[in-house]
Amino acid sequence: MNENIHKTAIIYDNVKLGKNVKIGPYSIIYPNVEIKDNTSIGPYCIIGEPIGSYYKEDKHEFKKTIIEKDSVIRSNTIIYEGTSIGEGFNTGHHVTIREDSHIGKHCSAGTLTDIQGKCEIGNFVRMHSNVHVGQFTKIKDYAWLFPYVVCTNDMYPPMDRLKGCTIGEYAIVTTGTILLPGVEVGDNALVAAGAVVSRNVNEEAVVMGVPAKERGSVRDIRDEDGNQIYPWKEYLEEFRGYPWQKVKKK
Amino acid sequence: MNENIHKTAIIYDNVKLGKNVKIGPYSIIYPNVEIKDNTSIGPYCIIGEPIGSYYKEDKHEFKKTIIEKDSVIRSNTIIYEGTSIGEGFNTGHHVTIREDSHIGKHCSAGTLTDIQGKCEIGNFVRMHSNVHVGQFTKIKDYAWLFPYVVCTNDMYPPMDRLKGCTIGEYAIVTTGTILLPGVEVGDNALVAAGAVVSRNVNEEAVVMGVPAKERGSVRDIRDEDGNQIYPWKEYLEEFRGYPWQKVKKK
Amino acid sequence: MNENIHKTAIIYDNVKLGKNVKIGPYSIIYPNVEIKDNTSIGPYCIIGEPIGSYYKEDKHEFKKTIIEKDSVIRSNTIIYEGTSIGEGFNTGHHVTIREDSHIGKHCSAGTLTDIQGKCEIGNFVRMHSNVHVGQFTKIKDYAWLFPYVVCTNDMYPPMDRLKGCTIGEYAIVTTGTILLPGVEVGDNALVAAGAVVSRNVNEEAVVMGVPAKERGSVRDIRDEDGNQIYPWKEYLEEFRGYPWQKVKKK
Repeated sequence: MNENIHKTAIIYDNVKLGKNVKIGPYSIIYPNVEIKDNTSIGPYCIIGEPIGSYYKEDKHEFKKTIIEKDSVIRSNTIIYEGTSIGEGFNTGHHVTIREDSHIGKHCSAGTLTDIQGKCEIGNFVRMHSNVHVGQFTKIKDYAWLFPYVVCTNDMYPPMDRLKGCTIGEYAIVTTGTILLPGVEVGDNALVAAGAVVSRNVNEEAVVMGVPAKERGSVRDIRDEDGNQIYPWKEYLEEFRGYPWQKVKKK
Repeated sequence: MNENIHKTAIIYDNVKLGKNVKIGPYSIIYPNVEIKDNTSIGPYCIIGEPIGSYYKEDKHEFKKTIIEKDSVIRSNTIIYEGTSIGEGFNTGHHVTIREDSHIGKHCSAGTLTDIQGKCEIGNFVRMHSNVHVGQFTKIKDYAWLFPYVVCTNDMYPPMDRLKGCTIGEYAIVTTGTILLPGVEVGDNALVAAGAVVSRNVNEEAVVMGVPAKERGSVRDIRDEDGNQIYPWKEYLEEFRGYPWQKVKKK
Repeated sequence: MNENIHKTAIIYDNVKLGKNVKIGPYSIIYPNVEIKDNTSIGPYCIIGEPIGSYYKEDKHEFKKTIIEKDSVIRSNTIIYEGTSIGEGFNTGHHVTIREDSHIGKHCSAGTLTDIQGKCEIGNFVRMHSNVHVGQFTKIKDYAWLFPYVVCTNDMYPPMDRLKGCTIGEYAIVTTGTILLPGVEVGDNALVAAGAVVSRNVNEEAVVMGVPAKERGSVRDIRDEDGNQIYPWKEYLEEFRGYPWQKVKKK
């Protein structure tokens, strides 16, 4: 037994583990999972969790689940079968990622975040704590979702006519925002805290309120010293791990 | 040892398990629990969790906890002692159900949902992810609660003068709604996303906003093709498992 | 082996456990943790969880983590290294407390509450379920945070220029409130459910709405019998464990 694999971890057949992969105590790795080099899986994680039909079938065919290299999956995280996750992924605790979601490189999902399945998430997407990403949501590269953001999808609940939201590149969806089904948030837009977004948001727009209304451009925002700060890519000083940031300042 | 009971599961005395009951790895079943035929308990679940007085007593008398047949309890779910749950119950992950709650048949509680105890929940009630059901809440048959709905109960916080909400039959309480203590939502009413409901909601009414105001009848809503869609029971086409739906279409 | 320590618990070196400390099944206690007399740690808990740098280092120096006497830490709770917690602490399930937070005596944190680290929390602070406390938040003695309250901190997201909120003594921050970065809520103030608080709140003020506006004084609130009830310390009848309450009435 590899000493990186805790003796209490339960590893099913047909699991591929790369070099220096660590599996923590009491974790469960279901069949047809591949975990690549240097990835750490914390305690009490489930990787390759079967979908609902598993409970009704005599024999379940597990779909392929893949987690690329250099990822850190923290404790109590559950990742369903049929999911693919790019390198450098980072989770908090108690994260759930449902089936058939595809997540790009260098993304993160904070504690209690719940990705409901069939989602397409780009590269360098940062989801903070307790974000809810409904089925069929699309999130483009470099977008940010802050705590308690909810991306809904049922147009006429509970009719189950699902239409996912789309969040543009570099968009900033701040705390406690609700995005209604099918809404598109433009690139570099900023959705203010507590907004209920019922219509598409223009690129670089600032929206706020219940329901959300456009209140100007991100280019008009100034910080407490009077400096422009958005689009944030152009003004970011802190090192946050982006490819255009060469030197680690912090 | 029954092969359906994982060898790492901890089963206390005075536990009754029906035919074909499965208990997953590392789960804990406390005394005086009965789990009926064909129910699956996932990994890291706790069934019959003791109430707070347990920590102060020399000897704790566990109240009866019962989960009826054909239920699926997913990982990291905690169900307190004194709870009864009807057949066909289905949970997501990390669900908590506190003491002395009674849940009818064919209900579901999504990932991270937290039912605080002393609640009365009817049949075919669907609670989506991350719903918070305060103590003394009553939810009638066929009601829907969408993600991040919070049913409060403390009339003058933190005075602990608790008065639960009531949600009517077929009512649709959508994402991020807050129901203030003692509020009654009428049958077939629809509460729009992000509403803060401070007064009773009439049957078939649509309410929205902070605070929520009545904006018409559900019968006036049309879908994108101009079709009436509410009361939803009359217009539901997708198969969602209801007793009046004979054929599985999906 | 102490019979109070479950045989499946994983206890690292350099852990100090007081008299009558209980450690539940499958829990993990990392190095440099001290747990004092009569404290119970439930199943699947992690105490002394290492910070992110752990995953990149050959050898990690664990900071001191301390939980004082008479505390109850319920299942699936994760407490990071470098945290100190006063006596009589009580958690629900699935609670996360990140590094370098300091929590006073007789506090509680409900199910799913997420304290993000570097927070200063006083004595007798009550955090209900699913509260999110951002980094650098300060909460003073006797304050109450109700379900789904979010204390934010990023002034110009995602710039990472963090400024924590401050919540005053006896303040009541009710369900679903969002506090924007750096906001100060005065002593004895009441923030109504669903408010988005963008400016400081005066002592004893009542604020509500999106954005929150001042709507009067807590002294003007009357209950259904016409009685004054705030500031709540002066009118509290139920026994809630406060030092000025001598007799347990409930």
